[in-house]
Amino acid sequence: MSDVAIGIDVGGTKALALIVARDGRVLGEVKAKTPHDAGNRAGEATAAVLTEQIIELASTHGLDPSEVPVGVGLPGLMRRDGHLAFAPNLQSVNGSDLGALLGVSLASSIVFCENDANCAALAEHEWGAGRGIEDFVMVTLGTGIGGGVIADGQLVRGRSGFAGEIGHMVVQAHGAPCLCGGHGCWERYASGGGLGRLAREAAQSGRLATLVARLGSAEAVRAEDVTAAGAEGLEEALVLLKEVGWWLALGLSNLAAILDCGHFVIGGGLSSASDLVLPYAREHLVDLVEGYDARPTITVTTSMFGPRSGAMGAALVAFERNS
Amino acid sequence: MSDVAIGIDVGGTKALALIVARDGRVLGEVKAKTPHDAGNRAGEATAAVLTEQIIELASTHGLDPSEVPVGVGLPGLMRRDGHLAFAPNLQSVNGSDLGALLGVSLASSIVFCENDANCAALAEHEWGAGRGIEDFVMVTLGTGIGGGVIADGQLVRGRSGFAGEIGHMVVQAHGAPCLCGGHGCWERYASGGGLGRLAREAAQSGRLATLVARLGSAEAVRAEDVTAAGAEGLEEALVLLKEVGWWLALGLSNLAAILDCGHFVIGGGLSSASDLVLPYAREHLVDLVEGYDARPTITVTTSMFGPRSGAMGAALVAFERNS
Repeated sequence: MSDVAIGIDVGGTKALALIVARDGRVLGEVKAKTPHDAGNRAGEATAAVLTEQIIELASTHGLDPSEVPVGVGLPGLMRRDGHLAFAPNLQSVNGSDLGALLGVSLASSIVFCENDANCAALAEHEWGAGRGIEDFVMVTLGTGIGGGVIADGQLVRGRSGFAGEIGHMVVQAHGAPCLCGGHGCWERYASGGGLGRLAREAAQSGRLATLVARLGSAEAVRAEDVTAAGAEGLEEALVLLKEVGWWLALGLSNLAAILDCGHFVIGGGLSSASDLVLPYAREHLVDLVEGYDARPTITVTTSMFGPRSGAMGAALVAFERNS
Repeated sequence: MSDVAIGIDVGGTKALALIVARDGRVLGEVKAKTPHDAGNRAGEATAAVLTEQIIELASTHGLDPSEVPVGVGLPGLMRRDGHLAFAPNLQSVNGSDLGALLGVSLASSIVFCENDANCAALAEHEWGAGRGIEDFVMVTLGTGIGGGVIADGQLVRGRSGFAGEIGHMVVQAHGAPCLCGGHGCWERYASGGGLGRLAREAAQSGRLATLVARLGSAEAVRAEDVTAAGAEGLEEALVLLKEVGWWLALGLSNLAAILDCGHFVIGGGLSSASDLVLPYAREHLVDLVEGYDARPTITVTTSMFGPRSGAMGAALVAFERNS
């Protein structure tokens, strides 16, 4: 059994690789851009980038890369065999078998793949904000919304390993179109991407006049501009962040009804704006959760490891499947 | 260990009590009306009705009622200790501890309570349409929508035992008001009650002209009239049933995304109209499930035990907790 494992979180813009000890300590980190310009060879190009990261981390620690267990977290439907079956938010790698490609390039038989938000849930459950909690949902707010469901202390993986696709829960029938092909998915309202979409709509309808004046046009308004303006206390931005908090609470309420989870751990890029959004979300839960008063308190906290949760959990997956 | 158990399913209109063998054979049945006119003593009145049912079933089989394990299925938030914490569709019994009341009236220490749809899920998993299936959801379409989630072969109960409240998943933000206090809950669109609501709206807007002419007024149109007319092939009724099938598929798709369950078992009163609704629901799943083509086939069948699933599962709960 290895003392360390490498975990990599492959996102739409970057791949974060960590070398992690069995007790969760991060011993080293390498970041790289996720390649998108390789056309139908994007899977191979991505595997090449990850291979370099793994070799660099292993050699820095005096290890043979083929002997270190490696876990890879990917967004979308990850089959139990490591094949990425459907990835609306990482379309370039859709259909690739990154685990097999890495196995070849590293001459390793100990490469394991898992959904990125499932990885984050496992890391938070083992070492972080979900430690000791038997029923919680990890919610990653990035371009989309990913999820990892812990029920009775175990990760819910489902029939094919696809469980936790909470961002594609429809909360507004016939609503905003989604990259998955559906309409009204939660992630069109409550993710970083959802905030961007709501911000552009608000800008176009004149609800963000100060921001539009500052940035020059309604089209220029991005999610980051709204969170930055909210942090300054700009009222029109706070109104929009409150709206996103309501949508966030709506989806959390659905999950609470279905799963009776008493706790949510919020991660992903938008969680850096959590001071602005989470207080509103907590406030709205009271009205939105069925039978709120009949339940013990439902808590919502930010992830303990922030942008590192996914990669740390990928390392945990590597430890567990290699044992 | 007892060879038989009594299971009772307490619904909004009637209480169905069964005496069941360990292999699932139903040995006897007693039905009674659920009392609603006892004001703030409705809990006691309900317990009295159930006590009579239990005594009748036990004595017919030559048994002492205090020695037969009893399971009771109730709609709403059932705490693990047997207390009914919140029941939007059975408000008269809200807050009662039926398990304790029955324990006193029967001088029995082997009375167990569970959510009614969880009971149905357990019965279908042990003996019926979910047998051998590790990931499925039981969906009971009655006045509301109840649910029981089986993940990796186990019932998901959640922190307080409240899991499976799938009918209160919001699918239409700011939508139709619900008895739970929320808006846009799935059960306002896809249950028997939802069909009734959609039917009245359709009748009032002139979309059910033949039915309104037949029944005398738009207000007179009930869910049963629509399903009966649909069975006759009346086009305007079929259009409405197709709409309900779409709403049913929408909620099932959400559950498939969150849980990756490959199978749904449909029970409850509306399931008697399943020949009319389920084909539409299956058809719409193809468009509504995220990444449908990337997944193995998702199946939707009716419950094997129909209106008896809940009571049979309550008996199963009694067997298991008494062992």
